[in-house]
Amino acid sequence: MAPTSEGGAEALLPDLPKGPLQAYRSRASFCWKELALFLEGEDVLRLKKTIFSTLENDPLFAHSHGEELCLEKCRELSFLRCLRLLELSFLSMEDMVASPLLVQTLIACLGMYDWSLGIKFLLHMLTFGSAIYSSGSKRHLKYLPKIFNMEIFGCFAVTELSHGSNAKAVRTTAHYDPTTEEFIIHTPDFEAAKFWVGNMGKTATHAVVFAQLYTPGGQCHGLHSFVVQIRDPKTLLPMPGVMVGDMGKKLGLNGVDSGFAMFHKVRIPRQDLLNRTGDVTPEGTYVTPFKDDKQRFGASLGTLSFGRVAIVGMSIVNLKLAVSIALRFSATRCQFGPTDGEEVPVLEYQMQQWRLLPYLAAIYALDHFSKSLFLDLAELQQGLAGTDHSARQAELGREIHALASAGKPLASWTAQRGIQECREACGGHGYLAVNRLGDLRNDNDPNCTYEGDNNVLLQQTSSYLLSLLARHVQGGARIESPLRTVDFLEAYPDILGRRFTCPSVDGCLDSAVPLAAYEWLVCYLLRESHQKLTQEKRSGSNDFEARNNSQVATSLVSELVK
Amino acid sequence: MAPTSEGGAEALLPDLPKGPLQAYRSRASFCWKELALFLEGEDVLRLKKTIFSTLENDPLFAHSHGEELCLEKCRELSFLRCLRLLELSFLSMEDMVASPLLVQTLIACLGMYDWSLGIKFLLHMLTFGSAIYSSGSKRHLKYLPKIFNMEIFGCFAVTELSHGSNAKAVRTTAHYDPTTEEFIIHTPDFEAAKFWVGNMGKTATHAVVFAQLYTPGGQCHGLHSFVVQIRDPKTLLPMPGVMVGDMGKKLGLNGVDSGFAMFHKVRIPRQDLLNRTGDVTPEGTYVTPFKDDKQRFGASLGTLSFGRVAIVGMSIVNLKLAVSIALRFSATRCQFGPTDGEEVPVLEYQMQQWRLLPYLAAIYALDHFSKSLFLDLAELQQGLAGTDHSARQAELGREIHALASAGKPLASWTAQRGIQECREACGGHGYLAVNRLGDLRNDNDPNCTYEGDNNVLLQQTSSYLLSLLARHVQGGARIESPLRTVDFLEAYPDILGRRFTCPSVDGCLDSAVPLAAYEWLVCYLLRESHQKLTQEKRSGSNDFEARNNSQVATSLVSELVK
Ligand SMILES: Cc1cc2nc3c(=O)[nH]c(=O)nc-3n(C[C@H](O)[C@H](O)[C@H](O)COP(=O)(O)OP(=O)(O)OC[C@H]3O[C@@H](n4cnc5c(N)ncnc54)[C@H](O)[C@@H]3O)c2cc1C
Ligand SMILES: Cc1cc2nc3c(=O)[nH]c(=O)nc-3n(C[C@H](O)[C@H](O)[C@H](O)COP(=O)(O)OP(=O)(O)OC[C@H]3O[C@@H](n4cnc5c(N)ncnc54)[C@H](O)[C@@H]3O)c2cc1C
Repeated sequence: MAPTSEGGAEALLPDLPKGPLQAYRSRASFCWKELALFLEGEDVLRLKKTIFSTLENDPLFAHSHGEELCLEKCRELSFLRCLRLLELSFLSMEDMVASPLLVQTLIACLGMYDWSLGIKFLLHMLTFGSAIYSSGSKRHLKYLPKIFNMEIFGCFAVTELSHGSNAKAVRTTAHYDPTTEEFIIHTPDFEAAKFWVGNMGKTATHAVVFAQLYTPGGQCHGLHSFVVQIRDPKTLLPMPGVMVGDMGKKLGLNGVDSGFAMFHKVRIPRQDLLNRTGDVTPEGTYVTPFKDDKQRFGASLGTLSFGRVAIVGMSIVNLKLAVSIALRFSATRCQFGPTDGEEVPVLEYQMQQWRLLPYLAAIYALDHFSKSLFLDLAELQQGLAGTDHSARQAELGREIHALASAGKPLASWTAQRGIQECREACGGHGYLAVNRLGDLRNDNDPNCTYEGDNNVLLQQTSSYLLSLLARHVQGGARIESPLRTVDFLEAYPDILGRRFTCPSVDGCLDSAVPLAAYEWLVCYLLRESHQKLTQEKRSGSNDFEARNNSQVATSLVSELVK
Repeated sequence: MAPTSEGGAEALLPDLPKGPLQAYRSRASFCWKELALFLEGEDVLRLKKTIFSTLENDPLFAHSHGEELCLEKCRELSFLRCLRLLELSFLSMEDMVASPLLVQTLIACLGMYDWSLGIKFLLHMLTFGSAIYSSGSKRHLKYLPKIFNMEIFGCFAVTELSHGSNAKAVRTTAHYDPTTEEFIIHTPDFEAAKFWVGNMGKTATHAVVFAQLYTPGGQCHGLHSFVVQIRDPKTLLPMPGVMVGDMGKKLGLNGVDSGFAMFHKVRIPRQDLLNRTGDVTPEGTYVTPFKDDKQRFGASLGTLSFGRVAIVGMSIVNLKLAVSIALRFSATRCQFGPTDGEEVPVLEYQMQQWRLLPYLAAIYALDHFSKSLFLDLAELQQGLAGTDHSARQAELGREIHALASAGKPLASWTAQRGIQECREACGGHGYLAVNRLGDLRNDNDPNCTYEGDNNVLLQQTSSYLLSLLARHVQGGARIESPLRTVDFLEAYPDILGRRFTCPSVDGCLDSAVPLAAYEWLVCYLLRESHQKLTQEKRSGSNDFEARNNSQVATSLVSELVK
């Protein structure tokens, strides 16, 4: 570390206040400031400091401990805070593109403060904003400044009452009318109402709406996204033909106004089709640069991965908060001891260490994974923006999709279980609302569900691995990927031949030992799944049945992540 | 089944309404009414019906879906409902003694309705009430009718801000003053404030307070319980010298007013010492029928077990509710399918079955365990009431204590994990507050903590098993217990010699196979723990260190329950 940067870091990392944790802290065998600097880097630390000190000094962000807020008030407050965030503009569009890790830091800081705010902001700026940016074209750039100055407020509407995981089957329609050059957005019935859409409940003025695109003559071209105005930005009253409302109380994230909407023949200009993957000419002809639906879908995988990769980071923030609370409590909470007069901190108990320290270790491992995946994704997206259509780019898209589809379950489940363990590790005091473990559990929970239910996502990773194996077995294709995460599978017959030989418990502490065991297990389960699937197909099951009858076997492959 | 009782049962179990579940229900291979009758019995079914139809028809019990209640309102409503319950008097004192399972049924029904009410009622009637009944003597019987007609409202105060698990170390004092024949109840400092006491926050008029008993001259006789009036029953204002208040919002159970209290030299009559295990003469001499503290403590184990055994049943109620919600949802929620047009219920997916059906099976097993343990406990308590001081009675007390100390963690953790799985199995819809999975998770959660933290309790069961083994190894004592739950350990050297021989997966479905594996594992872990502990002691660790360094090993024995 250069001395100047250390000097700078010193100011960024003031000494911790003296207190009951001092005894443990003084026993550390390393300098925590150096570690923080090594893990985060100065830019990230500086941004964190800017954000936290700004929020601390603005009364709008004062936490109202004790005071109870009703649902309406929670949502109003999150909205006002979101507005203020946009005024504060911690990162410009240029910063975001130049330093993806700063984007991750911003989300993390907002989440540490309050996930309702973090997610409201994320949905508007990044989900809504980047849907327009990455699925639209030049004609949609006009929306971007309006997003930054909050002239419009956005949401992202895929899910319907009856279709979540099976998003491709949503039933909202967009019929093109060449006489007026408009699309007619329509909800055929209540089950096709848009549902669960964050920001839609009370505050969004615009939605990116996914609908089945029909051209004159009645041909359906599959799912496309459209920018639809749903409210008047001045009055927040719904636009004509739009029935929109709030879904009510959720288990957590109650500052986010999740909403539903039904469209009654709402007309929007032709230009508001986000046309990166397909467009309709003024006369009503469908045009697309892609050969088929599958290729078109492949091109959109990068966009899909963003949310999942973000959730990996968000889940880790939750685990960090929970583990910090539980460890600090355990270091100061005394209970029992060698004699009646002398009690020891519960952290001294072997059980308490056994329960908490593996989660502390998981944080470091997952944090590293999360950052590197975020950077890989940024690389992918920059390629997409530069319209890189190379084979490597396509392969990278698939690999990141597979990593994100297993990484999101890994991180969100680890966090969910870890938070529960931390809650219990704090005994009764962990059950008091003010100690936040309940909010963390409730706010982390949907990370297991949105952007793809964990159990459904795992199957995507399994499919990826199985298809690599199938191509290898059938055509002798090499198993390799741009980020090299699957390259070890190339040696899978050798790996399967390996035997566990480590003679002692101490020997197992060498990380090569569990790694080898892990490789063996992946190969073993992969082979089992492959055989099960092949056998099912041979015995006459159709594709759907075969996949279903092998679901547990194939999911186990990715469940390894658990 | 006798035809008359079947006729009666028919009226108790009307047909289920036709609806979307009909398709699955009609495929059942058994008659659900016969099963319900077999599992519950007619008396229990009749009580359930009485309770539910009464609550359904009384507007005070109408659920206020949608309407938001503030904390104050929640607590007030629970209190009013608790009052009404006591007026309704579903079970008389005689019913309770004659049919313990009806008590369990009453708690279960109230919990199915709302745990805040269930627990408020339980704390007053059963925890407070039976503490007086079973720790007091004739002179305390005057309190019982007042409990039933709610002239007084009770709570049970052991825990202090600084002492939970280590309850023996609580620091509230009760000094006897022979000049006025009174005890002086006193809180030495804030850390010794009573804490977490359900009903104490706003509504209790009386508390059973645990305090260290001192006789003149300053001798301490250890923990005893006292009836202390804390509020005026007319005004609910605190009594002089009592500082009492509400702890604020919790993760769940917000209809229960959990509270704290500090006593400033509060004087209570000598007679309000609950004197079953020790008393003070008017002159100030301490008298006890027990030889030593250990024996005195042993005699109180039966009382301690009640709460834990009750929690086993309460946890199962939560799991039943969650699994019913998730299975019914899964049977009607369609997503994906063999063709685009044809979607199948998610219950058809192997993964969904794999995730939910083991919890369904666990319910049946745990329900049976819970009922039989409840009946065993009732037998124990009747023995105690009849002052049965036999060796068998003492041994039964220890066995039930060990079963309850492992059974509570087993049931509460299984429920907590099961509820989380059910929440996730319902996808986004599981995250909507109105669907109750959040309340179930939040209300079940403290079952892992109160009446003894699960991890601390497991160590009690381990100690019980290890002490049986030690007596066997050292003195050749037979390993046997009144309920025969540990008798298999007598064969432990043989069991350890067994090898796993089952040749096929199908063979493992015979329940004898997992049972044998389970017996082997218990014996193996027990031997390991015993050895670890002996070795630690030999290598010079003191008792406390030795136990701590073996904590994970010994807990694993009881963790088998997980
Ligand atoms: C807080 C929150 C915010 C959200 N925000 C948005 C938003 O802003 N915009 C938006 O469009 N959506 C949003 N969603 C919706 C979210 O994306 C969906 O909930 C998610 O995709 C899951 O879909 P579902 O809820 O319909 O679950 P379902 O698809 O109904 O799944 C139910 C269960 O069935 C199982 N299952 C389904 N298919 C299979 C299969 N083939 N094999 C095995 N098991 C299967 C699943 O594992 C799950 O357990 C949000 C959801 C939540 C909870
Ligand atoms: C909703 C609720 C209602 C309650 N109602 C009542 C009531 O009505 N009356 C009443 O008196 N009390 C009540 N309690 C208090 C309850 O009994 C205590 O919370 C419980 O006994 C645990 O004690 P604690 O909270 O002090 O946890 P602690 O004892 O501080 O435990 C903290 C952590 O340390 C661990 N730990 C402690 N000792 C050891 C050890 N030796 N080895 C390994 N690990 C250890 C525990 O596992 C736990 O994870 C209530 C609590 C709650 C949450």
